Amino acid sequence: MRERELIEAIEGVLGPAGAELRGDDAAVIAGNGVAVTSIDTVAYGFHFRLDTHSPADAGHKALATALSDLAAMGAKTGQAYVSLALPPELGSERALELVGGLAELARETGTVVAGGDVVAAAALVVSVAVTGWADDGDLLVRRDGARVADRVGVTGTLGGSGAGLLALGGTDAGIGDDVRTGLVERHRRPQPLLALGQALAAAGVTAMIDVSDGVATDAAHLAEKSGATVTVELGRLPLDRGVEEVARLAGRDPHEFAATAGDDYELLFTAGANATESVEAAARDAGSSVTWIGEVSEGPAGLTLVDASGAPADLAGHEH
Amino acid sequence: MRERELIEAIEGVLGPAGAELRGDDAAVIAGNGVAVTSIDTVAYGFHFRLDTHSPADAGHKALATALSDLAAMGAKTGQAYVSLALPPELGSERALELVGGLAELARETGTVVAGGDVVAAAALVVSVAVTGWADDGDLLVRRDGARVADRVGVTGTLGGSGAGLLALGGTDAGIGDDVRTGLVERHRRPQPLLALGQALAAAGVTAMIDVSDGVATDAAHLAEKSGATVTVELGRLPLDRGVEEVARLAGRDPHEFAATAGDDYELLFTAGANATESVEAAARDAGSSVTWIGEVSEGPAGLTLVDASGAPADLAGHEH
Repeated sequence: MRERELIEAIEGVLGPAGAELRGDDAAVIAGNGVAVTSIDTVAYGFHFRLDTHSPADAGHKALATALSDLAAMGAKTGQAYVSLALPPELGSERALELVGGLAELARETGTVVAGGDVVAAAALVVSVAVTGWADDGDLLVRRDGARVADRVGVTGTLGGSGAGLLALGGTDAGIGDDVRTGLVERHRRPQPLLALGQALAAAGVTAMIDVSDGVATDAAHLAEKSGATVTVELGRLPLDRGVEEVARLAGRDPHEFAATAGDDYELLFTAGANATESVEAAARDAGSSVTWIGEVSEGPAGLTLVDASGAPADLAGHEH
Repeated sequence: MRERELIEAIEGVLGPAGAELRGDDAAVIAGNGVAVTSIDTVAYGFHFRLDTHSPADAGHKALATALSDLAAMGAKTGQAYVSLALPPELGSERALELVGGLAELARETGTVVAGGDVVAAAALVVSVAVTGWADDGDLLVRRDGARVADRVGVTGTLGGSGAGLLALGGTDAGIGDDVRTGLVERHRRPQPLLALGQALAAAGVTAMIDVSDGVATDAAHLAEKSGATVTVELGRLPLDRGVEEVARLAGRDPHEFAATAGDDYELLFTAGANATESVEAAARDAGSSVTWIGEVSEGPAGLTLVDASGAPADLAGHEH
């Protein structure tokens, strides 16, 4: 398929939403409050492989990881701009499947694919820039707002994506089929928690970040930006169903595994003690849950991971 | 260099402008009129090679091609979001040189690098999403505004980038050193014509596009979007200095070469007869020039290339 035919076929997969925006040199969007923009990239062989991910999974993941950054700000989604660097040997059929997975998530989340670029390259690389919007910058939640005495919370469950990857690699002895399927789905189809992020922002969380690298890294970012000590008790991390079994099969401590495996795209945040109940209610109303895993205190800017006795829990060899 | 160290070194190259925007999940920009956004990607081996381009040239080109889309809308530049997919063998020194070339053009144009992503990949791919701004959408120039009886104009000169690439490949016998240097520079360092695009928009051009693929393709896009026949006389295309000689060395007709080689990033536009003088003055004030190369007429939506006698000039094998 020649480039022009491929672009026309991609237009067919994307459908009419945003088509008029994609037809010019650039997309024109009426400004509405503040624009919240992030760019994320997934590369074949590093962020996905075509033996573990379908092309549609890869397209889904590329958009999901970008939207997760909007979720972590508490922003509404808006437009996506998609760059596809396609190796000729991928073929147009798989390229269109990739766009299909991305377009499906765009529809589900109400994101308009407003522009893009399709180029030939020696490796499959998908970059997605997303712009969300908020009526007022004060409604957004940044990484630097954690205050001394805030509690540290995380939504949902952790470790599922990493365990799903291990299960795909054969580390799944004795795991039930439905548990395995859940873990694999978690790895292949991460969900950007847009509604949950907005609900937490409205409920008064003071700082927020999405868990892309793992709590051990992402809580450290939040602590450093906020200039405070964040202490997280490793044993309190909420584990996804099956994570304990898969981690043990791999010879790993399950909570350490959940703190470092990453790709869960849950939301990690801080909140004052007076907001605890409203935050829990907001998460529940958005179909999720909150687990309180630590607190913010005065001290050197950074993360301290501790065990149940309060002693430092060292993650051997982990860079954060 | 580990990923975190590389990101810190990249921050050092980018400097303080935009640093506070880059420190969170997403950049927050106060909306100001309408946002004009485009994404462009350059890939190693397809859009540049490291035997013809320095890493800094590649970084420059990635941002320049994205900004050229803003120029073609008549938008002001604003923010850039940069994705770097880096193969490990590139090394951090060359990666930083690439960012340096991009950062230099950002400073020259007043573009703030407001976000980015750095990932490992099997090939070097640089994607840049740029957002420009206009006070009012009516000030922007789209591709679909060409009207019957409009004249077709192009800024500057054409064919220089393609001739520069040929010269880099050794097709340069008898070309003077300064001419060769000019062509090679044109290929390595395309300039986004932001001020010129805004000046032409203010002067009342009716449709505009940047010349990235060559007039033969880009004028066809404009004609199709506008639903009119665009006729361009091949012999009127303004040739860059040295293009005639290099094209002849390569056995090509110089004007056909200039119409198809692409990568010139000049602006192609249409304007009513009453705007001719104001358009020419606007280009002159912005340090450029206008050549009138054709006209818009009723008929099938598309481009007709003609010779001086008005007979169709067929570009054998050219896809537009």
